[in-house]
Amino acid sequence: MSQVRIHNFSISLDGFGTGEGQSRETPFGHAGERLHEWYVGTRYFRSMGGKEGGTQGVDDAFAAQHEPGIGAEIMGANKFGPPGWQDDADWTGWWGPNPPFHSPVFVLTHRPRPSVELDGGTTFHFVDATPSEVLGQARAAAGDLDVRLGGGATVIREFLAAGLVDYMHLAVVPIVLGRGVRLWDGQESLEQSFDIEAVSSPSGVTHLSFTRK
Amino acid sequence: MSQVRIHNFSISLDGFGTGEGQSRETPFGHAGERLHEWYVGTRYFRSMGGKEGGTQGVDDAFAAQHEPGIGAEIMGANKFGPPGWQDDADWTGWWGPNPPFHSPVFVLTHRPRPSVELDGGTTFHFVDATPSEVLGQARAAAGDLDVRLGGGATVIREFLAAGLVDYMHLAVVPIVLGRGVRLWDGQESLEQSFDIEAVSSPSGVTHLSFTRK
Repeated sequence: MSQVRIHNFSISLDGFGTGEGQSRETPFGHAGERLHEWYVGTRYFRSMGGKEGGTQGVDDAFAAQHEPGIGAEIMGANKFGPPGWQDDADWTGWWGPNPPFHSPVFVLTHRPRPSVELDGGTTFHFVDATPSEVLGQARAAAGDLDVRLGGGATVIREFLAAGLVDYMHLAVVPIVLGRGVRLWDGQESLEQSFDIEAVSSPSGVTHLSFTRK
Repeated sequence: MSQVRIHNFSISLDGFGTGEGQSRETPFGHAGERLHEWYVGTRYFRSMGGKEGGTQGVDDAFAAQHEPGIGAEIMGANKFGPPGWQDDADWTGWWGPNPPFHSPVFVLTHRPRPSVELDGGTTFHFVDATPSEVLGQARAAAGDLDVRLGGGATVIREFLAAGLVDYMHLAVVPIVLGRGVRLWDGQESLEQSFDIEAVSSPSGVTHLSFTRK
């Protein structure tokens, strides 16, 4: 069976996947860009934007696993837009006319709307469903390919709690946010379900790989 | 001036320095021995107990920094004994007749008692004082040597908040405890005061070094 994979999800040392005070101007709240500097600096990320250069090495190796073999993504409402995006009929996500998904994307929201097809193969579908229900839809759309779980922290927690995650890559960034949305809450004994590997990068980030046992 | 140093303080991925339910039988609560397996397996730790063997490499290199250059230790009441040890006039700590401190040790407690001198140069002093007050006493006892802050998490939080820590070594163990005593609470923006280095070990632990800027 195809896998459910999480890639490049960054958290602070104290386990926050985003800061407090998310808005259209500050998608990650008071965390700013600090959780993702390691990622946007990679050759993989820069190449997605048509740019040359960027770091190679362990950060880039992890970053590049984002795309191959993925047939659909699932994301939470708080990843798709700032608080209140449901009131903006024209909101089509943060990513402009050609989003970096190139697949169907299932956005979990209690206020579904019609699907939106953008350039590059990305179509956003809006569903009000449980984790296992939306996963059924995503698997059907992905065919033989894997499903990427895009976050945020709340959705990842729910999928972990439901036992629906096969692989999770986290990047622990050496900052202490103090407030925001926590990843670890409710995940006691997660290590019993996953083999965990840690590898630190010269960038300061530590990559954690969780592979389901 | 001499430094205030923290060594070999283990936390879970979710930032707990000890588990829930600490008692005489379970000093680290439901965490059991899992936070400290990397440490007790080192050549340094085994040699302290008169045993041969043990791991060498990065875990051992960090472990062995515990002792050199230290002239006194400060610890919290919850490190010295299980809840209620203050009611046991005969309690002299977990460590038997020859504790691994070999220096004056200042135990913070709201119920001081007379000092206790044990073998190997360890004397426990019991003081009801603020972090800066007890540090003054420990510095006086340590002379030109450094002061080790022994934990637990609550005392480390208080010293960090007071800006009294010069160096902190944490070992992040790949388990999710879910409950216990948190290290990170109240430490927002700690990275502004410290250079942080992360290095992962083949044992699965990630060593974090915080060096005051």
